[in-house]
Amino acid sequence: MSKRKICVVIINRANYARSKSILEAVKKHPGLQLQLVVGSSTLLYRFGNAVDVIRKDGFKPDMIMYSIVEGENPVTMAKSTGLALIELTSIFDNLKPDMVVTIADRFETISTAISASYMNIPLAHVQGGEVTGSIDETVRHAVTKLSHIHFPSTKASRKRIIMMGETGNRVFTVGCPSIDLAANLACTLDDVRTRHEKSGVGGSIDFTKPYILVVQHPVTTEYGLALEQINETAKAVAMSGMQAIWLWPNVDAGSDDIAKGLRIFREKFNHPFIRYYRNFPPEEYLALLKNAKCIAGNSSSGIREGAYLGVPCVNIGTRQNGREMGKNVICAGYNHKQILKAMRFQIAHGKYPSNKLYGDGKAGMRIADILARIDVKIQKKLSY
Amino acid sequence: MSKRKICVVIINRANYARSKSILEAVKKHPGLQLQLVVGSSTLLYRFGNAVDVIRKDGFKPDMIMYSIVEGENPVTMAKSTGLALIELTSIFDNLKPDMVVTIADRFETISTAISASYMNIPLAHVQGGEVTGSIDETVRHAVTKLSHIHFPSTKASRKRIIMMGETGNRVFTVGCPSIDLAANLACTLDDVRTRHEKSGVGGSIDFTKPYILVVQHPVTTEYGLALEQINETAKAVAMSGMQAIWLWPNVDAGSDDIAKGLRIFREKFNHPFIRYYRNFPPEEYLALLKNAKCIAGNSSSGIREGAYLGVPCVNIGTRQNGREMGKNVICAGYNHKQILKAMRFQIAHGKYPSNKLYGDGKAGMRIADILARIDVKIQKKLSY
Amino acid sequence: MSKRKICVVIINRANYARSKSILEAVKKHPGLQLQLVVGSSTLLYRFGNAVDVIRKDGFKPDMIMYSIVEGENPVTMAKSTGLALIELTSIFDNLKPDMVVTIADRFETISTAISASYMNIPLAHVQGGEVTGSIDETVRHAVTKLSHIHFPSTKASRKRIIMMGETGNRVFTVGCPSIDLAANLACTLDDVRTRHEKSGVGGSIDFTKPYILVVQHPVTTEYGLALEQINETAKAVAMSGMQAIWLWPNVDAGSDDIAKGLRIFREKFNHPFIRYYRNFPPEEYLALLKNAKCIAGNSSSGIREGAYLGVPCVNIGTRQNGREMGKNVICAGYNHKQILKAMRFQIAHGKYPSNKLYGDGKAGMRIADILARIDVKIQKKLSY
Amino acid sequence: MSKRKICVVIINRANYARSKSILEAVKKHPGLQLQLVVGSSTLLYRFGNAVDVIRKDGFKPDMIMYSIVEGENPVTMAKSTGLALIELTSIFDNLKPDMVVTIADRFETISTAISASYMNIPLAHVQGGEVTGSIDETVRHAVTKLSHIHFPSTKASRKRIIMMGETGNRVFTVGCPSIDLAANLACTLDDVRTRHEKSGVGGSIDFTKPYILVVQHPVTTEYGLALEQINETAKAVAMSGMQAIWLWPNVDAGSDDIAKGLRIFREKFNHPFIRYYRNFPPEEYLALLKNAKCIAGNSSSGIREGAYLGVPCVNIGTRQNGREMGKNVICAGYNHKQILKAMRFQIAHGKYPSNKLYGDGKAGMRIADILARIDVKIQKKLSY
Repeated sequence: MSKRKICVVIINRANYARSKSILEAVKKHPGLQLQLVVGSSTLLYRFGNAVDVIRKDGFKPDMIMYSIVEGENPVTMAKSTGLALIELTSIFDNLKPDMVVTIADRFETISTAISASYMNIPLAHVQGGEVTGSIDETVRHAVTKLSHIHFPSTKASRKRIIMMGETGNRVFTVGCPSIDLAANLACTLDDVRTRHEKSGVGGSIDFTKPYILVVQHPVTTEYGLALEQINETAKAVAMSGMQAIWLWPNVDAGSDDIAKGLRIFREKFNHPFIRYYRNFPPEEYLALLKNAKCIAGNSSSGIREGAYLGVPCVNIGTRQNGREMGKNVICAGYNHKQILKAMRFQIAHGKYPSNKLYGDGKAGMRIADILARIDVKIQKKLSY
Repeated sequence: MSKRKICVVIINRANYARSKSILEAVKKHPGLQLQLVVGSSTLLYRFGNAVDVIRKDGFKPDMIMYSIVEGENPVTMAKSTGLALIELTSIFDNLKPDMVVTIADRFETISTAISASYMNIPLAHVQGGEVTGSIDETVRHAVTKLSHIHFPSTKASRKRIIMMGETGNRVFTVGCPSIDLAANLACTLDDVRTRHEKSGVGGSIDFTKPYILVVQHPVTTEYGLALEQINETAKAVAMSGMQAIWLWPNVDAGSDDIAKGLRIFREKFNHPFIRYYRNFPPEEYLALLKNAKCIAGNSSSGIREGAYLGVPCVNIGTRQNGREMGKNVICAGYNHKQILKAMRFQIAHGKYPSNKLYGDGKAGMRIADILARIDVKIQKKLSY
Repeated sequence: MSKRKICVVIINRANYARSKSILEAVKKHPGLQLQLVVGSSTLLYRFGNAVDVIRKDGFKPDMIMYSIVEGENPVTMAKSTGLALIELTSIFDNLKPDMVVTIADRFETISTAISASYMNIPLAHVQGGEVTGSIDETVRHAVTKLSHIHFPSTKASRKRIIMMGETGNRVFTVGCPSIDLAANLACTLDDVRTRHEKSGVGGSIDFTKPYILVVQHPVTTEYGLALEQINETAKAVAMSGMQAIWLWPNVDAGSDDIAKGLRIFREKFNHPFIRYYRNFPPEEYLALLKNAKCIAGNSSSGIREGAYLGVPCVNIGTRQNGREMGKNVICAGYNHKQILKAMRFQIAHGKYPSNKLYGDGKAGMRIADILARIDVKIQKKLSY
Repeated sequence: MSKRKICVVIINRANYARSKSILEAVKKHPGLQLQLVVGSSTLLYRFGNAVDVIRKDGFKPDMIMYSIVEGENPVTMAKSTGLALIELTSIFDNLKPDMVVTIADRFETISTAISASYMNIPLAHVQGGEVTGSIDETVRHAVTKLSHIHFPSTKASRKRIIMMGETGNRVFTVGCPSIDLAANLACTLDDVRTRHEKSGVGGSIDFTKPYILVVQHPVTTEYGLALEQINETAKAVAMSGMQAIWLWPNVDAGSDDIAKGLRIFREKFNHPFIRYYRNFPPEEYLALLKNAKCIAGNSSSGIREGAYLGVPCVNIGTRQNGREMGKNVICAGYNHKQILKAMRFQIAHGKYPSNKLYGDGKAGMRIADILARIDVKIQKKLSY
């Protein structure tokens, strides 16, 4: 019997981290054939050429696509969505997948969803039903309405998906695939140190001493405020006196502002203990997260993987508004005093117990199993 | 005080019929300025150059856009969505509207919705919450999740929109704007006859005698079956012995098949009483509908405007599955015997009493008033 | 040693006829690997689904692409060029060809040329240097300036290419590949009759009796006049009293007008001896041409293959202005009297002797041999 | 009588410098109406938001367009060409210009040329006929073949355009519009100093002391070598001991490599007398050039405006191969010793006499006059 062709579309580094265990499980599954599409910011130097990491991990892209319209503002995000939609449609038309898997809530996610929908290809969506801030939430729920199979991370997310009118027996609480990596982490801090002594720019980091991790993305619905917002975080980090590993933001409306803010900050203060990095492979990132005294910013990784790993997290601003959080998270506004206070509390507190809120480390395997056996009716119906 | 700029995007003839009263109301409103974008199949000869009708009605497009990728199959529908998304984004970037209005559920509808969403422009959606068949339903609900203001036609639709998580005070049951035209119809059958004695192809029509109206679109989720489906309808129409006015289908995956089916049918039988038309302006179409003994096919106009006008309707196949229907509608499968039987019943029955299920004729005015006064928060939230 | 990968891009039926012998020669050559891209109007029903013919001939497309923006006017021709350029770039990026071959002068030809140029892939152009009318000539010469290797059909064309500044040792007079098919034609008129008794629409054709062949495309630089122009031809054909096989035009700005003209003509006169066809596979077309009493219209096939086959040709209007013509061609303006007079002369004259002006039937083989051994410097230089 | 609408498309900073005097002359001309389209890298922060300079200079864009596909490699250059082609076509369709003006040889230049060609809009090309290196030359000559009116800068260029088959009475040697700015320069070095004391990054510059100006773009046909090439220049500059003002490269395949090279160089050596700038308005750039002891790199400004202003120039590598050069230019390979030696010679030599090789400062006025009175036949013909 021919294998079911599962096409997974990877479009940025976070995306890859959240689908790596799915890729592995689909690749290994006897009833499935993996079709891998890699595009968008994964191909860009500015975002750390994630495609190289993907290749080094043993995955060979069946197709690649450049689809980012440059500008990092609301206009170019919308245009990039359109360009990715055109490109992905040609790709699906040539690869002829039996099912398409799309992850999370970025603009390429909805490009993937619309393309598969119109092409009558059953669509599986990972990480639906979550409540957060920004345009991402809006897009995430729209993708839910386009999807045939849902793989939410949490029970509360599953419930919300069903309330939105999706049929319950198509909604599977499998946990977040990013937890799979955290649960099976072989990479150590020492590995990271060895590999990255020369990468990054800015101050120097002694990996044997305590450090904090900072990741702050622009909030697209607050476009124009990113520069100011990043300043508050930068001040708090500088005042904390801790070493800091600072990651470059995603490509998004406003990321230019953040990059600009970081550059100004760096030029001006030339802070000796803050070092800036473009990208880490998922496992190295998790090793950094696991060993951080605290993660600050607005990345969901502090909340998701942070919960499982018990890493103290200071969540800044509105980007994660409404997301389910474990006890490891303290929230702060865009205000350096609030941020600093929360960071100090978290550093003093130290590790939290592991919390399985976002999964137990077996999501990828569950997803592959379900994709191998499920039958999908293309015509969707509201459940009420 | 500067007027609020309301950008309405019109992308096909049905779309225009459903937004004409909105265009008029926005144009007249002292607090609003109309920005009109006309594109997609409205510009195409094959679909009757609806843009000419729009101009003749006194509306001057601020921008036009060609955005259909030819092929009328699932691949090109998806690509057309992407191309329209790119084009509309440039258009919105140049027109700088304060609000965008999108209508119904076609692929350009979701292009409009995504573009406005990423550009942080408040989005109003007309005709959301309806339950039907085909990909259109899926897309309609996804557009609901992207929209800030909702203008459903019926109470049941409003309820569904709220169940999907939209905030109640942003959902307004205004009726369907297409009913506005039906309620204020000045055009008579005689006007249509005078203007169209020479248009169309095929057999001849005596407008002073009874006739039926046929409009059957392809069902995109049943792609590949359209040719067979149209054959059953054609047989029933021929067997009815009635004069028939037959409208060309929308541009859609499968419409080539329908066109092919009609051409074969026409060549083969050369039926003397069936005449084929590409397009009518909305009011002429309504005059034809109002005076028809029966409308057959799967156009929603038989159900919506048909209810208000009391026109007997034979609804064929799955395209309108689940849509609220008044007593004027009888459903039939893709089977010429069933269709013929239903048609005969309806013709014998004659007119039904007017039913306000889909509106009372004041939707456009209500929409303009709400758009003029409402304040919208760009960041959406699930209501639960 | 690895084979040199030769990517040939086929975008319409004429294009395929002109490259079939190249495809065959590249496929057979021990030093070459064929990469076949099929797109644009070859995929469309309206233009006879040429892709099916290509597949039936034993060629498997490596990639297909839908790239026509619907409208058939100057705007959509330009947009289609842009869309094909985007699509082809992704395709080349995924196929990684060593050389790209582009044919003739249509809008997809320049899309191919620009894509290969910017991607630093050596580009070979077939049929450069010809002088004709319409935008096609302009585009043809622009493609020459982008190409690294030139395969003109005639000596005069070679001379013009060199005068435009191309280096002589990169310009090879190989003959036109379309003549290869004509020179090796196995298909007979009887084959065509057997296969097409039921295709086409309109009057009936008795293949055992004399007939003329009509092919008239719109002239893009005379956009808006096509309807009138086709009328003159139609009148002359009707008045000739001959049976006529009439081919549908290419997709082009104005082709809708021609289609409209043909439809009106057909409806109005319902001429019993004119039959309309969408498309024939190249060999069947050549069998029809070979056996025609006369070919009328503005297709270059009357001039090229017509010269080799000795078929009397009436060339109408400006589209072929300046093209080298053999003795088999008589030119006529857009005037039914002139056309009719020329047709009558040609029918009376009968067959002309074969003329090798456009090639001797070995172009494909020569092209493959040169592609296998040539070394190309990517940086081009004017020769003066 | 209605004014002739002249649409000028500006797509990067160099482009603006070379068309500013045209914009002014068209704006002032009583028979012309300026339509200004601004797009591509002029809109991007990374390239200095040239659109802001344009607005500050009193020009209001009629339309703007984002059209760069991110990646700065051969793939994305080709895709950007396609995207700009789609966008410009919609723009021309909405603006309805009587003529389009395109400048130089970048990928957006050919997008503009193809769009206007297919839309039957007469096309004027500025700076055709020049011989240089890189893909730019290839594209420049292809644009010549698409253009109806030619405005070369030099007599030799005019001659080449005519040799390529263009009709002599459509080719006007007007001089380069960039010389117009140089000839009428009001901006002083002191103005630049006052405005830019705080812009740029890196070492500090004392504007009252001697400095050199460095501008080095990637050579697209040598893609992959840019990093190495820039290193040689950087070494030579550092060894010269002079203050250096270094400009960021154009967006192009390879510019990421150059940016990377500059960043590494900057991080590593932290050279106290080199300062990096993203962009200057045209007049400020010319003031910097005029007062520089030497310009090094591969910008054509050293050769063009350098000739008029008599600024010593060290032209590095192949990008300007074949371009006409005055006595102010010395060429060097990608070798720091050669570069250093040439720089030292030029600094010692000092200013050269002004040379009118590239114009006398009246190009813009001449172009506007010709555009106002010329009649163009859309159908082009080879002159031989």
